[in-house]
Amino acid sequence: MPDFTDNLKPAEPSGPSILAKERGQSDVPVEELSKHLLSSNGFLERQARILPILENDRLFSKIKQMNLSRPERYHLGLARAKKLRRLADQHGWDQDDHDMAAYLCDDVSPYMVHVAMFITTVKEQGSDEQRAYWMPKINSWEVIGCYAQTELGHGSNVRGIECQARWSPETQEFIIHSPTLTASKWWNGTMGRTANHAIVVAQLMVPKSRNSKELVSHGPHPFIVQIRDMKTHKPLPGIAVGDIGPKYGYAPMDNGYMLFDNVRVPHNAMLSKYSWVDPNTCTYSKPSNPAVVYGSLTAVRASIVMHARLVLARAVTIAVRYTAIRRQFADRDDQSKAAPELSVLDYPTVQIRILPLLATAFALHYTGSAMQALYQRTRADISKGDFSRLAELHSQSSGLKSLCTDYAANGIETCRRALGGHGFGGGSGLIQLNSDYLSKPTVEGDNWMITQQTASYLIKRMAAAEAGKGEPIDEVERSSREYLAAKNQLSSEDFRVLRSDADIVSAFKRRSRYLTYVAYAQRNKENKSWNDLLLLLRKVSVAESESLLVANFHIALVSNDAGLSSQSKKHLERLFRLYAYYTMDASARDFAKAQAASDKDLDRLPHVIQDLMAQVRPHAVNLVDAWCIPDFLLDSALGRYDGKVYEDLFNRAHRLNPLNEITFNSDYRSEEIVRGGDGKELDRILAKL
Amino acid sequence: MPDFTDNLKPAEPSGPSILAKERGQSDVPVEELSKHLLSSNGFLERQARILPILENDRLFSKIKQMNLSRPERYHLGLARAKKLRRLADQHGWDQDDHDMAAYLCDDVSPYMVHVAMFITTVKEQGSDEQRAYWMPKINSWEVIGCYAQTELGHGSNVRGIECQARWSPETQEFIIHSPTLTASKWWNGTMGRTANHAIVVAQLMVPKSRNSKELVSHGPHPFIVQIRDMKTHKPLPGIAVGDIGPKYGYAPMDNGYMLFDNVRVPHNAMLSKYSWVDPNTCTYSKPSNPAVVYGSLTAVRASIVMHARLVLARAVTIAVRYTAIRRQFADRDDQSKAAPELSVLDYPTVQIRILPLLATAFALHYTGSAMQALYQRTRADISKGDFSRLAELHSQSSGLKSLCTDYAANGIETCRRALGGHGFGGGSGLIQLNSDYLSKPTVEGDNWMITQQTASYLIKRMAAAEAGKGEPIDEVERSSREYLAAKNQLSSEDFRVLRSDADIVSAFKRRSRYLTYVAYAQRNKENKSWNDLLLLLRKVSVAESESLLVANFHIALVSNDAGLSSQSKKHLERLFRLYAYYTMDASARDFAKAQAASDKDLDRLPHVIQDLMAQVRPHAVNLVDAWCIPDFLLDSALGRYDGKVYEDLFNRAHRLNPLNEITFNSDYRSEEIVRGGDGKELDRILAKL
Repeated sequence: MPDFTDNLKPAEPSGPSILAKERGQSDVPVEELSKHLLSSNGFLERQARILPILENDRLFSKIKQMNLSRPERYHLGLARAKKLRRLADQHGWDQDDHDMAAYLCDDVSPYMVHVAMFITTVKEQGSDEQRAYWMPKINSWEVIGCYAQTELGHGSNVRGIECQARWSPETQEFIIHSPTLTASKWWNGTMGRTANHAIVVAQLMVPKSRNSKELVSHGPHPFIVQIRDMKTHKPLPGIAVGDIGPKYGYAPMDNGYMLFDNVRVPHNAMLSKYSWVDPNTCTYSKPSNPAVVYGSLTAVRASIVMHARLVLARAVTIAVRYTAIRRQFADRDDQSKAAPELSVLDYPTVQIRILPLLATAFALHYTGSAMQALYQRTRADISKGDFSRLAELHSQSSGLKSLCTDYAANGIETCRRALGGHGFGGGSGLIQLNSDYLSKPTVEGDNWMITQQTASYLIKRMAAAEAGKGEPIDEVERSSREYLAAKNQLSSEDFRVLRSDADIVSAFKRRSRYLTYVAYAQRNKENKSWNDLLLLLRKVSVAESESLLVANFHIALVSNDAGLSSQSKKHLERLFRLYAYYTMDASARDFAKAQAASDKDLDRLPHVIQDLMAQVRPHAVNLVDAWCIPDFLLDSALGRYDGKVYEDLFNRAHRLNPLNEITFNSDYRSEEIVRGGDGKELDRILAKL
Repeated sequence: MPDFTDNLKPAEPSGPSILAKERGQSDVPVEELSKHLLSSNGFLERQARILPILENDRLFSKIKQMNLSRPERYHLGLARAKKLRRLADQHGWDQDDHDMAAYLCDDVSPYMVHVAMFITTVKEQGSDEQRAYWMPKINSWEVIGCYAQTELGHGSNVRGIECQARWSPETQEFIIHSPTLTASKWWNGTMGRTANHAIVVAQLMVPKSRNSKELVSHGPHPFIVQIRDMKTHKPLPGIAVGDIGPKYGYAPMDNGYMLFDNVRVPHNAMLSKYSWVDPNTCTYSKPSNPAVVYGSLTAVRASIVMHARLVLARAVTIAVRYTAIRRQFADRDDQSKAAPELSVLDYPTVQIRILPLLATAFALHYTGSAMQALYQRTRADISKGDFSRLAELHSQSSGLKSLCTDYAANGIETCRRALGGHGFGGGSGLIQLNSDYLSKPTVEGDNWMITQQTASYLIKRMAAAEAGKGEPIDEVERSSREYLAAKNQLSSEDFRVLRSDADIVSAFKRRSRYLTYVAYAQRNKENKSWNDLLLLLRKVSVAESESLLVANFHIALVSNDAGLSSQSKKHLERLFRLYAYYTMDASARDFAKAQAASDKDLDRLPHVIQDLMAQVRPHAVNLVDAWCIPDFLLDSALGRYDGKVYEDLFNRAHRLNPLNEITFNSDYRSEEIVRGGDGKELDRILAKL
């Protein structure tokens, strides 16, 4: 309905004119940088190809979906995921194409666990016969599977799970059983409403001998179990399964619960590539090398880091574009009466929240790439039977998963608050992103807990370095020896962190080794209890992970395999320093204690950081443009490429808001809620309470 | 429907037995402490009286409301708020009773702005005649009002708002007009769907003289304007008004937008206690003292601090109870095979996230109380025409509002992550709390921006102290003089922060004055630009606010007006030190630079903090019990008083989840979504996209 608001325009200067000016004033070669960041594996081409298919399909329209209820979000999510698979069939998409479509759709798929954990587990842990039987059904989505490991009472401590799989020699079956309420499977995605099969991780219990009643527990093992009828989709007898209810984000995902009442499954339900029960002799065979399971966990963590970079880039894109456009207060020192209001991004208090995160997104890129390369090399080694690199990889990936997902999760919220009032609104584009991403610090290894794995490895290598026998077995041990040799030779004056990028890298390394040494001494020499050291261990892990981020960023800059122009390099060097100095400043006291930077240099850091931010500021819009996050994905009035912030916000409120189609009765004496309704609006809601 | 799950119990030890043991092992006198914290203004009695009224009314049942859509949440919120008002009439509740009911209901009321800002503004800025006319209609909720100040293009900078009120001498009316799209009122609560009147803050423009065409702008002024028809509740001609759409939290609130197309209102629409336009002479009279507006802002901020304490106590209650119950991993150093899993709260990595926040809740209590007392004294002074204390009060309240709402907002999320996986679920009780509270760091003065107000005042007083003329006008100036006198006399060795609580207080004060002096020198001596100093100014404000929190906590402990037992005092002293040391450790480098603590003591802090946490740990459950947050308010399976965590989580999933009433079709080749439905489920959702 046209009305007088149609003729109104935002006050000048307009968003589009501001962004045009911002883009014009910068010499950042956006296209070159985009290719540098995103051409690996055809990402940019793929994005360009798949984007219009979703943009033109009403089912994938996002702008009003925040008005849906949680049950409706599951309905929609299911419909979208089914459609994506049909589109994949229709267009002949490969897995990467499908992943791109899911990324752009930005709605978690109820089939997610099927296409990720379920397929991977059957592939990696199933015997040849099992793979031959299951994979065709799995690939055609006839069998839809989930991964039921975590329980109501046990998450991180997998060995503590209660669900049992007892081998019954008489019937040659496993009996899957939940002895308690806390044994209920819990949180497992795709399980609540979607899946008809599950990988059930249960304590394998086998009689001591064929005729013995005494059961021996062999720890958690995976079983493939049908959980719903293939025709009616109802739970099979003896199984209670459902969705656990609303939660933070992930509205379209049916995270589930599941209990078993002595459910019998055949011998071949146990995935038996690495371990199996001999049905004749009733004996258990265990994996030759228990390390096999670490491999895929590490792959998942490497992809989490690569994903974190895009999540952070997305939040920063919105924050940079909007704060460049938004005006607030004239310069307090400008006494002229007509002083214009400043761009919010010109204030150091806004820069300090956004620009270091922009630098962090780049830092994540180089470390994510390095992790992927390391994973590929390690995988090749493993396939040759060489597991030697696995422990280091696992150690690195734990600390980095923890640090990088913290960066992204906290970064989204930091960006959101930097947007002021509009950051709180649906048009920010950060609400669903924030809620959906919030699980990442907790899943795939709780961020606080897994820092122990990193620190534990570093301490071991430090102990080996101090023993000093033979050749160091890896880079960590080598640098630990270097640290020990130089510990008292070098002083903070030897690290000119404000003058040399290489010295920055060395300073981060030295701080990490210093903290490792302190932890090593307390544990191995003073015999402190492990749990008393946990806070220090976390510090060690964070220091090491920051050191890796700095080192990988620096290697990328000095090696310049990518053949970057000097223009690009200039900007990347600034971002490298901004990330490094900002990070150093936040832990300045540790750098001082480690004799890794002089007190004088550390005192200078806040000024240096502010200067760097002032240098990055004019290029901020181009630097986020380089990440090529499409408007369709941003779904943000504040962050849209064309800068039409206020028009979009107003349009969403005035024309696209279902609440405005209803006239309410706000007279408190009346029980009527809606005017001109059927009078049963409240009854309908009460029925849902 | 009964099923096999009915007979299952959680694994031992059970939540109730664990909490009983926790409560039994502690000598914290819970009841005494509750009275100490919550007896002011009859809080505890009121809570006990009003709680059962809501608990027994189905309309206020919370457990399934997370399944509602945002439009439904407004319907429900409106119905609840109307019911609360009817209950108030029925039970003869006073305003405090009504506030308590709203607090327990925990659903923001669509009438909130009416009963807060709207009433206050008419009372404080209306003339006697205006009050006499409006207040009866306002108190009976015949007139329902909102407060329309913030606009699409302007929030914090109120002087920049674009909406106009032009005085028309010919017709003796004001013409309210929105010249641009960015002039649209925006965010204003109660306005979108509920209100029929508004306080519209507009730029007052008056002709230079009676016959002049030239308009003179006198800045923003408040006008009371009818916006909807009293019968049909439809917007009046020339007004476009509606709800702005979904946002973070506050689902039942109709934050609105509003544009005016030359809407004429009578002369008496302008609230004229302090300023008015003489209709005969066409002259403008302005307030005798512009400071009058600061008073109520400060009152709002004091209540925000008192509210933050309860929000934090609520999050900490959930975190402490659940992490005491939750078991995870045996002690790594315990080699016995049957080593039990430890309580998660026994790990220092969990303690460090929760226990300092527990201490912070107490710190907020004492400073909130002190602020309220200061506000009362200042108000009494103002009513006698003495505005001398106002600037200090305003300065304090700005920094404290900023720090305390950051504490609470970040604290909720820190607690949530400390809960591990279950923190992410709807049963955590932290999802709505987090979303609803997230606005606080931004509203009533953006937390980053208003730190300037605190720092600016401190610098002024430091300048006055260095000039040293006459008597110091307030406590800030007095302590600035002390600092200047002792600056080079005292060294860090004079502050024995690990030995003396009084020295802790002095150390915090010294660090704040040191940073103030640095800022003062850079601004007043080196003439640095204000904007270049913003990051330092924020540091000054945080340091001063932390110093106030520490000082107020300490005063409460040493004065002991409340007649606390020595038992209670012992525990409060630990919490005081835990808050102080934790805060000091986070800024250790500044304390060192300020010569306010020795390097040796600062090195010891992490150990001291860990020791303190180990001392607080056995009393944590009792210490949160003292805050008396009822289960009805917590709405948390994890935090319930009786410890039945797992039963409650399972019940919510298995029996109270509407999604489990539907069987879906997950065959991707089929367009059907729901089995046994009418086949139109997807169409209905598509219609909403």
